[in-house]
Amino acid sequence: MYIEKINNPNDLKKLSAEECKELASEIRGLLLDRASKIGGHVGSNLGMVEATIALHYVFNSPVDKFVFDVSHQSYTHKILTGRKYGFLDSDRYSEISGYTNPDESEHDLFQVGHTATSISLASGLAKARDIRGTKENIIAVIGDGSMSGGEALEGLDFSASELKSNFIVLFNDNGMSIADNHGGIYKNFADLKVGKGSAADNMFKALGYEYIFVDDGNDVEKMISVFQKVKDTDHPVVIHMATTKGKGYEPAEHDKEAWHWRRPFDLETGELKSDFNGERYDRVMRDHLLEKMAEDPEVVTMIAAVPDSLNFTSEHRKKAGKQFVDVGIAEEHAVAMAAGLARNGCKPVFATMSTFFQRTYDQISQELCINNCPATLLVINASVYSVNDVTHIGIFDIPMMSNIPNLVYLAPTNKQEYLAMVDWSIDQKEHPVAIRAPRNGVFYADGEVDKDYSSLNKYKITKNGEKIAVLALGDFYQMGEELVASMAESFGISATLVNPRYITGVDSELLSEIEKNHDLVITLEDGVVDGGWGQKIASFYGTSDIKVMNYGLKKEFIDRYNLNEVMEKNHLCVDLIVEDIKNLRMF
Amino acid sequence: MYIEKINNPNDLKKLSAEECKELASEIRGLLLDRASKIGGHVGSNLGMVEATIALHYVFNSPVDKFVFDVSHQSYTHKILTGRKYGFLDSDRYSEISGYTNPDESEHDLFQVGHTATSISLASGLAKARDIRGTKENIIAVIGDGSMSGGEALEGLDFSASELKSNFIVLFNDNGMSIADNHGGIYKNFADLKVGKGSAADNMFKALGYEYIFVDDGNDVEKMISVFQKVKDTDHPVVIHMATTKGKGYEPAEHDKEAWHWRRPFDLETGELKSDFNGERYDRVMRDHLLEKMAEDPEVVTMIAAVPDSLNFTSEHRKKAGKQFVDVGIAEEHAVAMAAGLARNGCKPVFATMSTFFQRTYDQISQELCINNCPATLLVINASVYSVNDVTHIGIFDIPMMSNIPNLVYLAPTNKQEYLAMVDWSIDQKEHPVAIRAPRNGVFYADGEVDKDYSSLNKYKITKNGEKIAVLALGDFYQMGEELVASMAESFGISATLVNPRYITGVDSELLSEIEKNHDLVITLEDGVVDGGWGQKIASFYGTSDIKVMNYGLKKEFIDRYNLNEVMEKNHLCVDLIVEDIKNLRMF
Repeated sequence: MYIEKINNPNDLKKLSAEECKELASEIRGLLLDRASKIGGHVGSNLGMVEATIALHYVFNSPVDKFVFDVSHQSYTHKILTGRKYGFLDSDRYSEISGYTNPDESEHDLFQVGHTATSISLASGLAKARDIRGTKENIIAVIGDGSMSGGEALEGLDFSASELKSNFIVLFNDNGMSIADNHGGIYKNFADLKVGKGSAADNMFKALGYEYIFVDDGNDVEKMISVFQKVKDTDHPVVIHMATTKGKGYEPAEHDKEAWHWRRPFDLETGELKSDFNGERYDRVMRDHLLEKMAEDPEVVTMIAAVPDSLNFTSEHRKKAGKQFVDVGIAEEHAVAMAAGLARNGCKPVFATMSTFFQRTYDQISQELCINNCPATLLVINASVYSVNDVTHIGIFDIPMMSNIPNLVYLAPTNKQEYLAMVDWSIDQKEHPVAIRAPRNGVFYADGEVDKDYSSLNKYKITKNGEKIAVLALGDFYQMGEELVASMAESFGISATLVNPRYITGVDSELLSEIEKNHDLVITLEDGVVDGGWGQKIASFYGTSDIKVMNYGLKKEFIDRYNLNEVMEKNHLCVDLIVEDIKNLRMF
Repeated sequence: MYIEKINNPNDLKKLSAEECKELASEIRGLLLDRASKIGGHVGSNLGMVEATIALHYVFNSPVDKFVFDVSHQSYTHKILTGRKYGFLDSDRYSEISGYTNPDESEHDLFQVGHTATSISLASGLAKARDIRGTKENIIAVIGDGSMSGGEALEGLDFSASELKSNFIVLFNDNGMSIADNHGGIYKNFADLKVGKGSAADNMFKALGYEYIFVDDGNDVEKMISVFQKVKDTDHPVVIHMATTKGKGYEPAEHDKEAWHWRRPFDLETGELKSDFNGERYDRVMRDHLLEKMAEDPEVVTMIAAVPDSLNFTSEHRKKAGKQFVDVGIAEEHAVAMAAGLARNGCKPVFATMSTFFQRTYDQISQELCINNCPATLLVINASVYSVNDVTHIGIFDIPMMSNIPNLVYLAPTNKQEYLAMVDWSIDQKEHPVAIRAPRNGVFYADGEVDKDYSSLNKYKITKNGEKIAVLALGDFYQMGEELVASMAESFGISATLVNPRYITGVDSELLSEIEKNHDLVITLEDGVVDGGWGQKIASFYGTSDIKVMNYGLKKEFIDRYNLNEVMEKNHLCVDLIVEDIKNLRMF
């Protein structure tokens, strides 16, 4: 095994090209073995094996600097830079993250998990190099759909003309975004592939780049020779490299979308080891939206390259027909386009991950909210119970979104309420509405839920009590129920429980009512406390005698966290809250 | 005068082409007359007169729909759609805004003030049209530097291939961003202009658009005939129209940057009617940064198409040389590039308007803050005392930015503190730092200010007192001083005054100390209260007996507001706060 001898990039440089091919095959085995056991990004990593070997063969990392876009395709890079243990030894899998990470290695420049960032980051490295007078090569690796992202396009445009020095963009064109590609540039890239690098118009050359086409980015020898040619170039160059997503593993080559990211699978057959067949909110909402669209031709479901956020497979997309829009990786465009759809009489529902809505603060504020366009935003994975990679955590949306004027941000507490809120939002014409999709399991309403949410900021008392009131928002409502139950036991108090429903405002009337026969208000929210919803309650009661305790998460970046530890650390457990109340010596 | 007969676009359609030319000249007179008296966007509006006449001559607004990018170049459109009173009658100038505004006219689709939005907004209108089966023309008007913005590029890419129907992009190429153009696409556009529409590669055609070049967009007949040709097209078309920014007014044609937006001027000479020669923070900081850059070659000043935010004229840019970077309209790129510069050993300082930082929430969070890259962000015009157009108001930055982990957001209260904070930020290597440039006039420190801000979240007591503590952040510090002074008079209380300095955190130690001999804490902040800094203080004291009053602005969009009215409405006046305190019946 060649892999045994490779502990850093210098070891790699001793191999012959033929041996590099062998090594590629060994690495592919490691990638598949690990992914089959714990899941991960499969397709793009399989496609990048040869190019990554060639990068490290030709360039001199970490002096020469690679910036991987999204960095979900950096597994081979990790294997070659001293981290093969994370792929060879199942006990050490968790020691490496799924993304580049400077804490792991000097060969990683940035912690990156969002798309379309590499060119701009690399342009900063290049500019700093030029200012400081050093001579290293700077290489941005991008592909897998990222090229349509506004930041990538801005970076591509800027770097083409403003950097008059070494700058190499390696564009991994595997013909896919996460799902299909969308957008005119992909047609141009496809034309260039057909023409082996020639087309009537070439976007990269139009911008001013030297352009090199490589028809087989999975040929390690070819890639080595291309990199040798561009090494130490004195101007910006794009290498447009065609690769096969999923290369070398038949199931992944065959169904590229399903194998972009994969849960643990049987290596032999590619079948998932387990499938979750219970009720899940993504599927619930997908089916609901399909029904709504069938009933009403003006409803349009929009996603931005992650159809998986609603489990909208190609079959469902086909069913929705022209009422389904995948804008590709272009979240800003999506929100602005939703504003346009709403303004011209349609009913757009744009769903994406909470972490990707971060791309659209300005579009939400300006295009949607200043204009009061009645579009619906479904905020997926906004929860501590969700993805735990630091670049994808969903605990920041409340401060970010809930303080934008005119937006109505709703937090459903169960399935019926979720569906009712979506129905109301789709059909109303007054407000831009965001809805925070629950993530703590599917719960059911006890009775009928409200259908009309047009009286804004009206919280709902679900259990009348006294002395202590628990205001439990969205995903944390069930924790609120438990907490109220434990008050009876711990303090002999029949506490009040409130389902606030509206994240974007305070129900002054209800809060004033509560003030009359309560001494303590507890707020629970599934997100950071700072700048969030509970602090508005604390502020409301600032001059009152009532006490307020705000529970939620500390403002910090947490990576690959253990859920229970995080909950405990933030006292988000009934026992610890009860303890805190006891320490107040009020009851 | 033809203008007298034009009350709506239908009146225009009765004119001959020759008469349209006369009309253009009359409109140009109106534009200049109004701008000379009250200021406004001059250059781009002068350049768009003929094209706008031609648009309304050929198309049928409001059935056919125009979306103006930034919409600062929509003055002629306003004149032709029933709003000429806003240009003819100086008593009615203020009845029209500087941007498109659906409240003014059915011919305006959106309230727009940020760049790069028109194509995406228009694509939503077009998609809705196709779904609803109507047949109107949809026209996005873009130019003046907006094309380099990520959202525009996303929209251009999407619309090229995903809309298979009528979609017209009118690209007004006047060869300028606000300052010079930056980026490879502008080189392509310049090549296309030289080649009268031909170049080796054409970015628009690469994306899949039909492409039409017009060498003189200031020729109304030519524009009419081009629009007649594309009207009712069944596919996406780009019209690349070369115009002269400032057309028809020599001073504006000559110095395009100075005439992008202009304060009142003498119509004869173009000279400003008054110039502010006192001390201003933009110039103070510009000179300070020029000094820093001269001393330290690793300091890099970055702006994004608004050099005016630091009053960095071409002369100063030349002086800064390679240490000055204007990325063009590409804010996302700017923040990511700053992260790259910092990671490779430089000391970037990126300055832009608070409202444009809204474009960069994700880049601040991911590229800068997760990676803890020591870049400095100068947040300009973040204040109620600043720009009052709804699309540009600067009162939302605190909730948006201060709740991002790892960011150190500082609020200086005077000139010396501002400079000291910038100096500290530039030279430290631990944190991404944002600094909120003051906007309430230049104040001076009483004595020495701290040079080191590395002990985070340490507030400073500037006057020791008892019973009432006033925590007055940044721009509102001077109001805090007045308030404290009035406490002595009103209540006979020697109140405490605190300069919090850090927006991003709470000084628990100091707050606990204050708790001992105070009954009331008042927070003052120059921004919306919801999700802001003061609510963190209210939350901190939630279980204490101390009372808290949070002062700042209500979460709402306010347009062309009267400062005094807004301040009064929000009780941001010493008298009204004193009244509120009296109403508590505590003192």
